[in-house]
Amino acid sequence: MTAASAGACDALTAMVDGTLTSERLVGDCLARIDAREAAIGAWAHFDAEAARAAARACDDGARGGLLAGLPVAVKDVFDTADMPTAYGSPIYSGHRPQADAAVVALIRRAGGVVMGKTVTTEFAMFAPGRTANPHDTAHTPGGSSSGSAAAVADGMVPLALGTQTAGSVIRPASFCGVVGYKPTFDSICPTGLKNAAWTLDTVGVFARDVADAALFAGVLDGRRCRADAFDASRPPRLGLCRTPQWAAADADTRTAMAEAERQAAAAGATVCPIDLPPEFDALLAAQHTIMAYELARTLAFEFDTAPDRISAELGTILDEGRAIPARDYARAQQRRRVCQAQLDGIFAQVDALIAPSAPGEAPRRTAGTGDPVFNRIWTLLGTPCVNVPGLTGANGLPVGVQVIGALHEDARTLSAARWLEATLSGATAG
Amino acid sequence: MTAASAGACDALTAMVDGTLTSERLVGDCLARIDAREAAIGAWAHFDAEAARAAARACDDGARGGLLAGLPVAVKDVFDTADMPTAYGSPIYSGHRPQADAAVVALIRRAGGVVMGKTVTTEFAMFAPGRTANPHDTAHTPGGSSSGSAAAVADGMVPLALGTQTAGSVIRPASFCGVVGYKPTFDSICPTGLKNAAWTLDTVGVFARDVADAALFAGVLDGRRCRADAFDASRPPRLGLCRTPQWAAADADTRTAMAEAERQAAAAGATVCPIDLPPEFDALLAAQHTIMAYELARTLAFEFDTAPDRISAELGTILDEGRAIPARDYARAQQRRRVCQAQLDGIFAQVDALIAPSAPGEAPRRTAGTGDPVFNRIWTLLGTPCVNVPGLTGANGLPVGVQVIGALHEDARTLSAARWLEATLSGATAG
Repeated sequence: MTAASAGACDALTAMVDGTLTSERLVGDCLARIDAREAAIGAWAHFDAEAARAAARACDDGARGGLLAGLPVAVKDVFDTADMPTAYGSPIYSGHRPQADAAVVALIRRAGGVVMGKTVTTEFAMFAPGRTANPHDTAHTPGGSSSGSAAAVADGMVPLALGTQTAGSVIRPASFCGVVGYKPTFDSICPTGLKNAAWTLDTVGVFARDVADAALFAGVLDGRRCRADAFDASRPPRLGLCRTPQWAAADADTRTAMAEAERQAAAAGATVCPIDLPPEFDALLAAQHTIMAYELARTLAFEFDTAPDRISAELGTILDEGRAIPARDYARAQQRRRVCQAQLDGIFAQVDALIAPSAPGEAPRRTAGTGDPVFNRIWTLLGTPCVNVPGLTGANGLPVGVQVIGALHEDARTLSAARWLEATLSGATAG
Repeated sequence: MTAASAGACDALTAMVDGTLTSERLVGDCLARIDAREAAIGAWAHFDAEAARAAARACDDGARGGLLAGLPVAVKDVFDTADMPTAYGSPIYSGHRPQADAAVVALIRRAGGVVMGKTVTTEFAMFAPGRTANPHDTAHTPGGSSSGSAAAVADGMVPLALGTQTAGSVIRPASFCGVVGYKPTFDSICPTGLKNAAWTLDTVGVFARDVADAALFAGVLDGRRCRADAFDASRPPRLGLCRTPQWAAADADTRTAMAEAERQAAAAGATVCPIDLPPEFDALLAAQHTIMAYELARTLAFEFDTAPDRISAELGTILDEGRAIPARDYARAQQRRRVCQAQLDGIFAQVDALIAPSAPGEAPRRTAGTGDPVFNRIWTLLGTPCVNVPGLTGANGLPVGVQVIGALHEDARTLSAARWLEATLSGATAG
């Protein structure tokens, strides 16, 4: 095992103990990128020399903080003042923003080493980039945070930034077999993130395990989470939630859900079925309405000035968004609020829900980036969600399970996710 | 009366009738700017030739839309691809963004003529710019949308964009004697707005009257409001709300509130006192906590890379924000949600609340940009707010009255504001 495949918390411990330096860790990551990037295509831009210099500064004690010396990848929808930022669109090819996005500044402030920018789909929507799934390069890593999920899964970096507007953190995390964590909506500063849909866009993170994801997100949202900030020692009360989209789950996902239920119950969790109230049936369509409506506004400048450099796939959503009447948008937002008001009742009974992260294994790349059908309603509701890996499908590709918590109850959600992660991996939770 | 002093709806009518051209309207505005800018200092940048060219394109029929031919001013916190955008900070002096903010693109799409960028305080906070109040140049126009409020008040433009994070639309509108309208939070796309505090920043508008403000905001939020989209013919049920901040109201504001109550009742409105529930007492402090905490994150890049170009005034808030524990921020957000849940009960009794817009007349410029004490809780709650002008204080300066509506009930709020506007001006509402 090289340093590059170590998790973030383990690497931090080793650096504190003096058995690892940031320069060696970054060097191992760069070697991994060098060996694998041609096959994976995770990076829109990376700067090996700048990364090595930042690592040396950490080792020299010039830079400290909670992420001191850790390599971090940044999805190319976040502005960076020292690296090109193209948002996955030819319109912004070579664009160099004036400022870092706030989360990038916070990563640097915490001593994190920004390795580069990872491939995103066009404006974080559905037109795929060139990234492949590290588990089988004929398959998609998912989208839109394609490069971030693949880079973490492939051992190129221990931590990566993503965003989710429909299913862009949880779905690629499921496909790539890593932890993806989408915090409660608006808990992480979105400044310098290229908007897709302003009431949906959520900053999220990728990591090798739940503790690493909590560490990273804690730096970004100011909670300074540490491994001991959440409690995974007691089995949680879990609600098995098939969601109104259950028909979209294939055999692999159905098996994974049953297996998660079986193992969780065997390890002592209370697992009960939870049916969502009938009002939740309208949320899938409401998310789509809101996303398309808002997208047609956030990309108004690009649509009006460079329509020829917008993909046909994105153009279709933009046309749809422009045609949506304002009253339909208002009704969709109203449906969101009605259901959000019912979440407290649901989470009074359980610590977290478990639900599918995706319809099944990663589809082949020729079929696109996969369907966010199991993510849209939770993005709309704004609840914290964690993809817990550990199970596989018929082709041996990862199939994740989604842990969903109450609004603003991120610590409780992460605790349940960490417990489930340990249970599914056969390790002892704690 | 020159065309420059006409309102937006009147100018549109005259252009449709053929009695006014956009070129003449823009020319009159430019003449007004030429005559008055030295005294008022409303503009961070304007481009007379580009404005004339855009006006001619409208007159030639090359550009149409709901704002066709109307001059619009843009607060310099919104990105513009063809004009410098400095956010009121020397850090961004000469900065030229790659894209227009979404609202700027929507204005141009609707045929609006973007005249230039108006002076904002530093990053829309409290360090004043050079703008003077058109009613008395020794007095402040208020902040942070200083230039936008002053430009509309002085007849330089009929419409202007602003933003409110604490009290940056309603307070300057009150001080300058114009209509300021802050829609329900998140109803207008914030893409390309320089964030101050992401759960507070609200795009708003300035206009000469409520109908003009509704027209403009309707273009921005997709509702395509027209003068007939709201009903101001029936006297509304108004709740007289002194707010927990009443002690900050000076004699002018107390007199204005009493006068508004008297005239509204005389014109047939039902006016009853509304006391806010005791939980609302905590909102003023909660807004400050959230604003400072978020500001310390949104400006992380600027703070870390250019601390010497941040004013002492802003530096104090940033230091405060960095020192706020995450649990205090979470508690403040929780207080916001508790009170938001009580708004439906309050607005079941009344169509709108009336409350002070500001403590009194505009203070002298030497004393800063005035106190947003009567605006902070409503920004935090996200309710639609309208400053209705028409009354004056002891020095003859404007003193506005704030009309506040239920969340997402913007049409009802604007109807009440329009009715009150007509009542205070002695005109017939309708």
